[in-house]
Amino acid sequence: MKNFKFYSPTKIVFGERSVNQLGRQIAGKYKNILLHYGGGSIKKSGLYTEVMNILKEYDCEVYELSGVEPNPKLGLVREGVKLAKKKDIDLILAVGGGSVIDSAKAIGIGAMYDGDVWDYYTGDASVRGTIPLGVILTFPATGSEASMGSVITNEDGHRKLAVNHDILRPLFAIMDPLYTLTLPSKQTFAGIMDILSHIFERYFTHTKNVDLTDSLCEGTMRTVIKNAYILKKDPRNLAARSEIMLAGTIAHNGLLGMGREDDWASHGIGHEMSALYGTTHGRTLSIIFPAWMKYVYKENLDRFVQFAINVFSVSVVNKSLEQIALEGINSLITFIKDIGLPVSLEDEGLPLDKIDFMAERATEGGPLGTFKVLKKEDVIRIFNLAR
Amino acid sequence: MKNFKFYSPTKIVFGERSVNQLGRQIAGKYKNILLHYGGGSIKKSGLYTEVMNILKEYDCEVYELSGVEPNPKLGLVREGVKLAKKKDIDLILAVGGGSVIDSAKAIGIGAMYDGDVWDYYTGDASVRGTIPLGVILTFPATGSEASMGSVITNEDGHRKLAVNHDILRPLFAIMDPLYTLTLPSKQTFAGIMDILSHIFERYFTHTKNVDLTDSLCEGTMRTVIKNAYILKKDPRNLAARSEIMLAGTIAHNGLLGMGREDDWASHGIGHEMSALYGTTHGRTLSIIFPAWMKYVYKENLDRFVQFAINVFSVSVVNKSLEQIALEGINSLITFIKDIGLPVSLEDEGLPLDKIDFMAERATEGGPLGTFKVLKKEDVIRIFNLAR
Repeated sequence: MKNFKFYSPTKIVFGERSVNQLGRQIAGKYKNILLHYGGGSIKKSGLYTEVMNILKEYDCEVYELSGVEPNPKLGLVREGVKLAKKKDIDLILAVGGGSVIDSAKAIGIGAMYDGDVWDYYTGDASVRGTIPLGVILTFPATGSEASMGSVITNEDGHRKLAVNHDILRPLFAIMDPLYTLTLPSKQTFAGIMDILSHIFERYFTHTKNVDLTDSLCEGTMRTVIKNAYILKKDPRNLAARSEIMLAGTIAHNGLLGMGREDDWASHGIGHEMSALYGTTHGRTLSIIFPAWMKYVYKENLDRFVQFAINVFSVSVVNKSLEQIALEGINSLITFIKDIGLPVSLEDEGLPLDKIDFMAERATEGGPLGTFKVLKKEDVIRIFNLAR
Repeated sequence: MKNFKFYSPTKIVFGERSVNQLGRQIAGKYKNILLHYGGGSIKKSGLYTEVMNILKEYDCEVYELSGVEPNPKLGLVREGVKLAKKKDIDLILAVGGGSVIDSAKAIGIGAMYDGDVWDYYTGDASVRGTIPLGVILTFPATGSEASMGSVITNEDGHRKLAVNHDILRPLFAIMDPLYTLTLPSKQTFAGIMDILSHIFERYFTHTKNVDLTDSLCEGTMRTVIKNAYILKKDPRNLAARSEIMLAGTIAHNGLLGMGREDDWASHGIGHEMSALYGTTHGRTLSIIFPAWMKYVYKENLDRFVQFAINVFSVSVVNKSLEQIALEGINSLITFIKDIGLPVSLEDEGLPLDKIDFMAERATEGGPLGTFKVLKKEDVIRIFNLAR
């Protein structure tokens, strides 16, 4: 186990009708609220009206900024920063999924800075403070509701970059699984792939003596896989929706990575696909992860054997370690296909002529990852395993 | 899954030499510090000097209150409250194990109140605020370093009572497993029993659809049991010490109980034994828990079957569900004996003539527990199963 810090102060308010707890979170503390959301879905579902009624009841001034898209854009963030400064916003309330939350986080830190908010993402400025952020989560996937990260896409030049800082962890996250019952299948399963990937990125490590977090990772992976299959058959199964929603938070609040060296290479590679083609984040991961695994498993065969046995219950009888490891990877591929996600660029209808460009971009800031350190040539090989 | 709130804001600073991070936690924020600890062990180990040097370096005024005993006493708490009020303490630093931390928590809330701090424990006053609390943990067991609870013993009348409030969660907990290498075997394994009990109290529930937290509980229990056996053979195994230390925090910060109905009956019964005989907390639990399990398992046979299979790998071939469940309980008894703890009042050399008195006391405030609601007669029967 490595030395580590773990800090996850976000108050999770979980369950049916938990939006009714919104008032208690803000009472007497916040006045000027920036309500940040995506398209019309929260209006259709009635959540918008519920939230507005509560904010009105607590005498808040509400300023709205809607229109957040998947792979949230810098343009809208800049607009939000201006608004937050002008209106003296003291709480941002993000109502939606990971894109809305990441966009809100960017606005929160941007408003505390005289320069351009993009500076944080390029590393040209360091995060110092933020406007407090509350979340009402409607779509489990990115774990942003309790994470320290924000990922923003700069439309000029197709750059998708991240900031990570403890100050970005939301104050509270209201999570009602009822909101997720009607999510389209495509979103549900792309989200599930994102959740699993957050665990993979912590689970595949060379750090020794990590019994506890291994077992937490494996238990969370098994739970996600089991309940994904339930949702495939029965999308309105509230119990399964609840398990997935909670797993999404746990997968990325830092808990599962305590004391472990992690590896974010696959996320990094996937971001280049999203930046270039707008591919849904979870679908980049379902394409990249199996290829990454095939490319790196020999770096630590034992870990892939443990994955195969403890997550996919691969039988070990009469098999070499390598066979067991590969069977684990193939079980994951089967799972991904079963939930209707792509496992190759071709599945997603993506061209092959920009592999070199994306590999160049992904490694521009230096090699990726830790489990196996990836240079541009390695990334090209991974893309080729994912053709 | 039930609706729930989860809030665990304590910053965990974990690993070898993590005491070096103390300065960063207090810099520029705290001036008058109450250093609270037990006997001389932190002086022998050199930790006292290290801490004092850091506090001096940051220009803190340090006031000391030592002498905390196991089952921490109200008398010392009252002394601490007086001192904290008089010296305008702005941070309490608890250096030690659960008793020191619980005592520090009591001082923290007591200093914000004009009446007697014991009122919080009897329920005659409600917690409103506290002096912030930092922890340097030297003994993993109670989980108090990140929990919302404090348990104090009133010497007058042998009462041991608890307060639970989110405000009692420490600001930070510095956890260096090196400190635990030299813990006496008795303390180590009593602590391990306390840790396991915190999981049992959440795991044995009637709440349905708790896949994720089930798997987190089971993984944590397996990790604790595996590493306890390692420490039995090799007490100076740092990797195993680290796993146990981290498991102790996770077991009681609320994570494993998310969305579950919990049951604190066994802790409550054990507290009466400690109040009357001064029995070490973990040793009351190793006596009570197996008896409680034998008394209640029929209330939810499936859960005890799951426990037997997923925690102790009990084989199911040619066995009835009841046999599997009982084999799980017996596996726990074997484990308890293997780590040298008592499983009966007789093992601990306790008399049997106060069972009625303890059962009366334990249920004075109403029946205990939820898995099976226990009246005085039930508690007597449990004690009799533990004779």
